[in-house]
Amino acid sequence: MSYETLNKISEKYLLLIDSYISDILKGEPELLYKAAMHLIKAGGKRLRPMITLASSKALGGATSEAKAVYYASAVEILHNFSLVHDDIMDNDDFRRGIPTVHKVYGINWALLAGDLMFSYAFLTPYLAIKSGANEKEVSRAVEVIAEGSKKIAEGQGYDILFEKTWDVDEKDYLKMIYLKTGALIEASSKLGGIASNSNDEIIELLGEYGRFTGLAFQIKDDILGVFGDPEKTGKPVYNDLRRGKKTILVLYATSRKKEWKEFFMKLFTGNQSDEEIKEAADIIKESGSLKYAEELAKNYYNNALEKLNSIETLGIIKDEESFKALKELAEFSINRDK
Amino acid sequence: MSYETLNKISEKYLLLIDSYISDILKGEPELLYKAAMHLIKAGGKRLRPMITLASSKALGGATSEAKAVYYASAVEILHNFSLVHDDIMDNDDFRRGIPTVHKVYGINWALLAGDLMFSYAFLTPYLAIKSGANEKEVSRAVEVIAEGSKKIAEGQGYDILFEKTWDVDEKDYLKMIYLKTGALIEASSKLGGIASNSNDEIIELLGEYGRFTGLAFQIKDDILGVFGDPEKTGKPVYNDLRRGKKTILVLYATSRKKEWKEFFMKLFTGNQSDEEIKEAADIIKESGSLKYAEELAKNYYNNALEKLNSIETLGIIKDEESFKALKELAEFSINRDK
Repeated sequence: MSYETLNKISEKYLLLIDSYISDILKGEPELLYKAAMHLIKAGGKRLRPMITLASSKALGGATSEAKAVYYASAVEILHNFSLVHDDIMDNDDFRRGIPTVHKVYGINWALLAGDLMFSYAFLTPYLAIKSGANEKEVSRAVEVIAEGSKKIAEGQGYDILFEKTWDVDEKDYLKMIYLKTGALIEASSKLGGIASNSNDEIIELLGEYGRFTGLAFQIKDDILGVFGDPEKTGKPVYNDLRRGKKTILVLYATSRKKEWKEFFMKLFTGNQSDEEIKEAADIIKESGSLKYAEELAKNYYNNALEKLNSIETLGIIKDEESFKALKELAEFSINRDK
Repeated sequence: MSYETLNKISEKYLLLIDSYISDILKGEPELLYKAAMHLIKAGGKRLRPMITLASSKALGGATSEAKAVYYASAVEILHNFSLVHDDIMDNDDFRRGIPTVHKVYGINWALLAGDLMFSYAFLTPYLAIKSGANEKEVSRAVEVIAEGSKKIAEGQGYDILFEKTWDVDEKDYLKMIYLKTGALIEASSKLGGIASNSNDEIIELLGEYGRFTGLAFQIKDDILGVFGDPEKTGKPVYNDLRRGKKTILVLYATSRKKEWKEFFMKLFTGNQSDEEIKEAADIIKESGSLKYAEELAKNYYNNALEKLNSIETLGIIKDEESFKALKELAEFSINRDK
């Protein structure tokens, strides 16, 4: 599969989203708004707003796009807020190839810029009223965003907790990545359903498409966290291993052999040498962990496609190109290198 | 004026708000929710939810109370979120007489607990739907809360900026305290108007009552920040002077005499001795600053009462006791000792 359709629409959507967010996230004090725009300006995949826009157009045609762009902007602002705060918590120096907000502006301004972005994630959907959304629709959109934001915080909580314990299994991991990543991608596709005035069944199916895509996306993210090219990911090499993250790669390997578990338990307690980190990466391959994770991501990708197929069977697609883009977005989630 | 009516209703409302928030702010991971409840459990004046509840009952009678309690809870959760993050930024060790959230749980958990509370401030109003609110009403309530939360972040931004510059005058100060404190109290009274299905004119008047009450409240807060009894305020003695806050007390004094300006400019650059801090407090009295600030707060209090009088003239008060409580809440804002 190629990304022909995705490439075509993403060119347009990237410009659209960026220009809307730049127009929305404006105000004073200047320094605060500059800090809030720092990470957003550095680009990013814009997966979430793409999903909102493509799903709204797929189900609602061009007319729903004018409203959906505000929900899409809100979701992207919320996503960036969570990255800014996560980077403070994880003490990460780089993201998207540039220094993180707290590295440039200090922790206080990064914290506050995050809070400001958080507020805008809830203010932005109201702008859709000017584009024909009624208050009931906006109310539903905001609730979906609020639900997503709560789950992000809970997921980040589990993520931090898991760094300090080995009492974590695959089920715990999947719950955590659903909360931390899947929930907001689920919200993104639901928002497309809301903007297109789809019925509850469709919104639910879209949500499941988003949830499965999000799970696949995060597993791929965890794979890139160990095997990704730093030049492409914009993050330091072996980032997750240095940080002691209990990703599926580590959990699977440590569940296979006692000596691998002992190796990782030791690795995650102290300062790791470059050789040890490389050995860890080798174990992940040797144990079949990498393959297992890739299969798992693939399964979620297939589940996501199934949900799209269920929608297709209903014969309500208004824009084939956007619907195809949704399929390609799911595929991109597991086949990307950044 | 005594607080007879206020004391009567606050007894009931304090229990109501506390039990609602405890019921709402529940979930997992446990540690995250414990951190989120830490400051809320320590009590507080609950000024904002009281204003929401009293204004809703004053204008809408008992029937609007069931909805208003959710908006009131949302506002109190949002207020507590901002305190948790402010305490991180200001590196404050104590609030409400107990160690701050980041002192007990560490900065990461305090940051994340704040984010979780922020999410709940937007989720909570939706619970009012079960109590008869329609989606349009909830949508308006959430928008008012989002607008307030944006202003809090902007206000905190100015507050931090003002610590580093002397290019601040009374107008800047008033703008800052409106954003940081006034806006959420304005939102609280507006929410009472929304819950009571009041028309836009009434909601606007209620908002202005809240705004003036909020300004008076913050000026009094700044007075207590220098002259308050730590046993009562729960904050360290001379807290604001040690931190170099450009409150109205400092701005007025430094605008009166060159030597006072020089004194404060020197005071705020280095580690202050206890004698210097005491001398600063003396200058604030001697310069007429304390008196000026008290007058200013009194004026805002009078403006707040005027707005209530304008509402009274319309002959639409449904509950006299709650209406009286609003007057007493404004008076409490300038006459409190904690």
